[in-house]
Amino acid sequence: MAAKYTASSLSRYLDGEFWATKNLIREEISKCDLFQSSSYDLTLDQSRDLTAERLRYVLNLPTMRLHLKDQVKDKKNRFITKSLGITELVCSADMATGVKLGVVCGLYGGAVTNLGCPEQVEKWYLPVSELEFTGMFAMTERGHGSNVRGILTEAHYDPATQEFIIHTPCEDAQKMYIGNAMKGNYAAVFAQLTVNGESQGPHCFIVPIRDRDGVLCPGVTAIDMKHKEGLHGVDNGILIFDHVRIPRENLLRKFGSVSGDGLYSSPIQSKSSRFNAMLAALTPTRLGLTVQAMAAMKLGLIIAVRYSHSRRQFGPKDQDEVKIIEHQTQYLRLMPHLAAALALTFTTRYASHMMDEALSEGQDLQSNRSLQALVAGLKAYSTWENLACLQECRECTGGMGFMMENRIPALRCDSDVFVTFEGDNVVMLQVVVRELMTQYTRQLGNSPVSGLLRTWASSASDNLRTSFIGFNVDKIGDLNFLLKAVSYRERVLQRSLAARLYAKVEKNKDEFFGAWNSCLHHVTGLALAHVHRVTLEQFALAIQECQVKEDHALLTKFCLLHGTSLVYQERAWYLEHNYLTPTTSKQIRNQLLELCRSVKDEALKVVSDFNIPSCCIQAPIAGVTNPRATWAFYSIPEHPGDETSLLSKHKINAKL
Amino acid sequence: MAAKYTASSLSRYLDGEFWATKNLIREEISKCDLFQSSSYDLTLDQSRDLTAERLRYVLNLPTMRLHLKDQVKDKKNRFITKSLGITELVCSADMATGVKLGVVCGLYGGAVTNLGCPEQVEKWYLPVSELEFTGMFAMTERGHGSNVRGILTEAHYDPATQEFIIHTPCEDAQKMYIGNAMKGNYAAVFAQLTVNGESQGPHCFIVPIRDRDGVLCPGVTAIDMKHKEGLHGVDNGILIFDHVRIPRENLLRKFGSVSGDGLYSSPIQSKSSRFNAMLAALTPTRLGLTVQAMAAMKLGLIIAVRYSHSRRQFGPKDQDEVKIIEHQTQYLRLMPHLAAALALTFTTRYASHMMDEALSEGQDLQSNRSLQALVAGLKAYSTWENLACLQECRECTGGMGFMMENRIPALRCDSDVFVTFEGDNVVMLQVVVRELMTQYTRQLGNSPVSGLLRTWASSASDNLRTSFIGFNVDKIGDLNFLLKAVSYRERVLQRSLAARLYAKVEKNKDEFFGAWNSCLHHVTGLALAHVHRVTLEQFALAIQECQVKEDHALLTKFCLLHGTSLVYQERAWYLEHNYLTPTTSKQIRNQLLELCRSVKDEALKVVSDFNIPSCCIQAPIAGVTNPRATWAFYSIPEHPGDETSLLSKHKINAKL
Repeated sequence: MAAKYTASSLSRYLDGEFWATKNLIREEISKCDLFQSSSYDLTLDQSRDLTAERLRYVLNLPTMRLHLKDQVKDKKNRFITKSLGITELVCSADMATGVKLGVVCGLYGGAVTNLGCPEQVEKWYLPVSELEFTGMFAMTERGHGSNVRGILTEAHYDPATQEFIIHTPCEDAQKMYIGNAMKGNYAAVFAQLTVNGESQGPHCFIVPIRDRDGVLCPGVTAIDMKHKEGLHGVDNGILIFDHVRIPRENLLRKFGSVSGDGLYSSPIQSKSSRFNAMLAALTPTRLGLTVQAMAAMKLGLIIAVRYSHSRRQFGPKDQDEVKIIEHQTQYLRLMPHLAAALALTFTTRYASHMMDEALSEGQDLQSNRSLQALVAGLKAYSTWENLACLQECRECTGGMGFMMENRIPALRCDSDVFVTFEGDNVVMLQVVVRELMTQYTRQLGNSPVSGLLRTWASSASDNLRTSFIGFNVDKIGDLNFLLKAVSYRERVLQRSLAARLYAKVEKNKDEFFGAWNSCLHHVTGLALAHVHRVTLEQFALAIQECQVKEDHALLTKFCLLHGTSLVYQERAWYLEHNYLTPTTSKQIRNQLLELCRSVKDEALKVVSDFNIPSCCIQAPIAGVTNPRATWAFYSIPEHPGDETSLLSKHKINAKL
Repeated sequence: MAAKYTASSLSRYLDGEFWATKNLIREEISKCDLFQSSSYDLTLDQSRDLTAERLRYVLNLPTMRLHLKDQVKDKKNRFITKSLGITELVCSADMATGVKLGVVCGLYGGAVTNLGCPEQVEKWYLPVSELEFTGMFAMTERGHGSNVRGILTEAHYDPATQEFIIHTPCEDAQKMYIGNAMKGNYAAVFAQLTVNGESQGPHCFIVPIRDRDGVLCPGVTAIDMKHKEGLHGVDNGILIFDHVRIPRENLLRKFGSVSGDGLYSSPIQSKSSRFNAMLAALTPTRLGLTVQAMAAMKLGLIIAVRYSHSRRQFGPKDQDEVKIIEHQTQYLRLMPHLAAALALTFTTRYASHMMDEALSEGQDLQSNRSLQALVAGLKAYSTWENLACLQECRECTGGMGFMMENRIPALRCDSDVFVTFEGDNVVMLQVVVRELMTQYTRQLGNSPVSGLLRTWASSASDNLRTSFIGFNVDKIGDLNFLLKAVSYRERVLQRSLAARLYAKVEKNKDEFFGAWNSCLHHVTGLALAHVHRVTLEQFALAIQECQVKEDHALLTKFCLLHGTSLVYQERAWYLEHNYLTPTTSKQIRNQLLELCRSVKDEALKVVSDFNIPSCCIQAPIAGVTNPRATWAFYSIPEHPGDETSLLSKHKINAKL
């Protein structure tokens, strides 16, 4: 039934350039038995086994095998954009499988391909695409998750045997939350490298964890962390190394290597810059989180929007009850999230295209500060937005939304961890602002913090004037007004943050950490303002490129809604800065209500155009039959005709 | 270790008048094997059996048996306040047990005791306290959850046999989400009563569901709904009746009865008023939801606050890392929720005292409109506040907060349903406003809707002037300023809503449902403003009554924080209404940041003074050992001395 809109122009536009690959994956998932039923009632072991089987199935798909070989051999073929498209579909089918795919190919694979040399890739990653073994990614430690620079795992070089000795010196150095830790064969382990008694900072090593029969290697301990809120199919564990010896060749050597006679060399001199370069090389994986969050959001929205168009409750006296989507609160709770899901779709595509371009031109991702800032910011914004969206979907579907059959609870529990893993969101927002600041410094040729702050503080203010124009000339219902408003906010927050930090650090000689910490609320506000602005701009650009008139009109409404919602959320700030008057602020609220009302029926078309197979949707309240919960079934609602109004006279067929 | 603060004056003050009873329950739970381990890794059947065992244990406690007999025999002994105290502790130990206790004693028991006559109570409820059988509460139907007046289950009186025939006429009439449906013996079933072909509206009937051996009664079908997001120990099911015959005596007859020869009589003539009276009699149960949400919030806060004082991450260059509570974002995320938990403690007590007073004076709860409004509003505010709080606790504890051992995920999943069950929150907020409106009408002797609107619109405006005074005279850091601000907001929203509805219904002759629906965002805003105002007032009153100087000072800070947080959240509204200037609005933000910072260390004392047994806290990151997750253990943090600052020099003991 979901195939109804398969060929719609909007569906194709939302899919983007790899729509054919996506359709192939959709077909493969739809016909595979492993993906035909939900797994909420399995034991932990059953969940993990099923996820391993699903992962194996996905890796074994011809499309996927070909694609993984591209990862190794040819990065120029828009590899990242295509990867993210595949990832989103796998996550739609099962979040645990998507996350485990991310661990094996994105994190472990990304470490080997981005930090290793070609021979290392050949040896440690190509076999993954041949299903010979799987890998894991061991960065986080008990003592250091967010502050990853502080990791304590040791890697001492022993020139006598030309080996590294990987060791866990204390409890806080234990590698924790490692995905695939109970099943995987190799780990990409980050450890502090010491050569000849000299510390060279964190490096990444390939450490064999267990052989293909599952027997642990000597000196390696793996502790099962077992039960989590969600992602039950992902086996997270703790890795402890007791003087584990690995060959010299197991140091991934793109950013640093040790010669046979124990001489360390690296293309990057500063230890700190070297580690930054390694982290930057892993950026594409971070964008994967945004795509995973989007997959969850879209599923939640399909389910909630369809049920809201089926379910009826309350109504005018002596008349039939109305569809719950007609309640003002209901459309106000759901529609802004649908607009945000569209904005994220286009913004993620923009970021992945930027990455693909950079990689195809052989550029260093690290030097692209605006890309680093955007990806970090998108990770935080999208994962929070997803949780907020799923929570509204859960509440807007009432008791039905609390039942596991209807999918929303598991989606929420699975994706809850996204806001803190692979970079806690609050830390990500600080990365955004640091990257933006560094970007300015680079552009202006300064390097000391104080210089940067001073320059930033003055340069930003120059750009403000253009924004002010928007206030008088445009109307609030104009997309330009909204674009200027979000841009204005970012710039003012940026300028005022620079001024505050400058005053604290330069004038008052405050210690930097304390000064930064006292501005943290400001920092996170600026970072989100930055992401908000980019999402609205990218949404607006995507509309310009949309050729089909009806789609253009539909997307324009949702884009206005997204912009209105962003400005509405921050209207207190705009009022404080006299950018909105009390009257225009109230108009923004009315505009939000009116836009949400006006798109509520078209929302049905949009969620169908997400083109998600019904075996992924699963929820009976969204029209997917489930013999285990016949009581939850509601047919897929018809798109309301023009004659349908708030006081719809359609009869409810409540009789058996 | 939690006993450290057991005897503190603040702990006693937070416990209130039934501190001794609460201590007894704490001791009983702490020494009972059933409550010594968490149950997140059980199968559905195991969870349900354990919950049934736990419930049996609780019901069998001498304190509890005595208390339940009070429910039947003597309602004057502050029964509700005491019940809620016990409920909160049972919910702390296990939410499923608390909810099931609520179903059996609060909902089923409440229905029998409040809607039945003494003989009926003797027959159908006293045996529950003797552990002879358990009951369930069957109001919600598939087609009608929120709009409960629309229930379709039928109860036809058959004068020939002097029986009622309980029947499910269609799928939408099936009783759904019924707690204890797979284990309970009797159900309090709401059905549309028809006598002699005349409809008398919904009434409540005692229907035998299964005998004490678990065999279902003829004509009754029970379908297991099985897997939910949380509350796995509660067996929710669907009840279907196929012309089930029950004796005439099984109609709970306080608000309506049928004589042997088939004559219906009721003390209340209007069908609508009659059902309102029945619903009002069940109000105490609704307050139970607020207490359940409070139990979850307090647990989340204990865990998150303790871990935030133990865990260190980031810090000034070349110095030890700081405790994560020192990060501005961390205390800003947690402290307002701690203040709200305190406000809710005092407000719930106020509401329960009002109920106890009313019942002891033999008053009808229905006529107490402000109490009805408060209880409905508190249900919505507290359950949303709980979810927001637990989400912050989850995120503020990072990956550890995602692990089941650390309790937060299960608390969140268990309490997620509170926002939609026993009255969807959006519906509850509409109840608040309707009760407030009716209260005005009653006071003024009007009854038609239009009259009420006109009167309300004008009368409310008279009360506004006093509020305006606050704007010029007081400082924003003054509690009076905050109290006046929240009161002002409620009144303006009330007046403007009345004016809008009046214009739509009276002038434009709009249909009422449509007019109301077009103001729904306004309605929900007013309802929350009402609850906000009451919580701040009750917090302020509770401080006045606190005799211990140190506690008084501590609570005052948290009360200021609660008020500041409420005004900060709505600062856009205050700016739109010129109640705050841009400058004072920014000051409110600074005040919020400063208050959160100033209470972050004292938060450790407050959470300890919640006095929750460590077997209920469970979380290793909060200092409770768990042999299954030794890797998650962090000792209970010491209260920081005055010398501890942001740049604490305390060494981290990270070595093994």
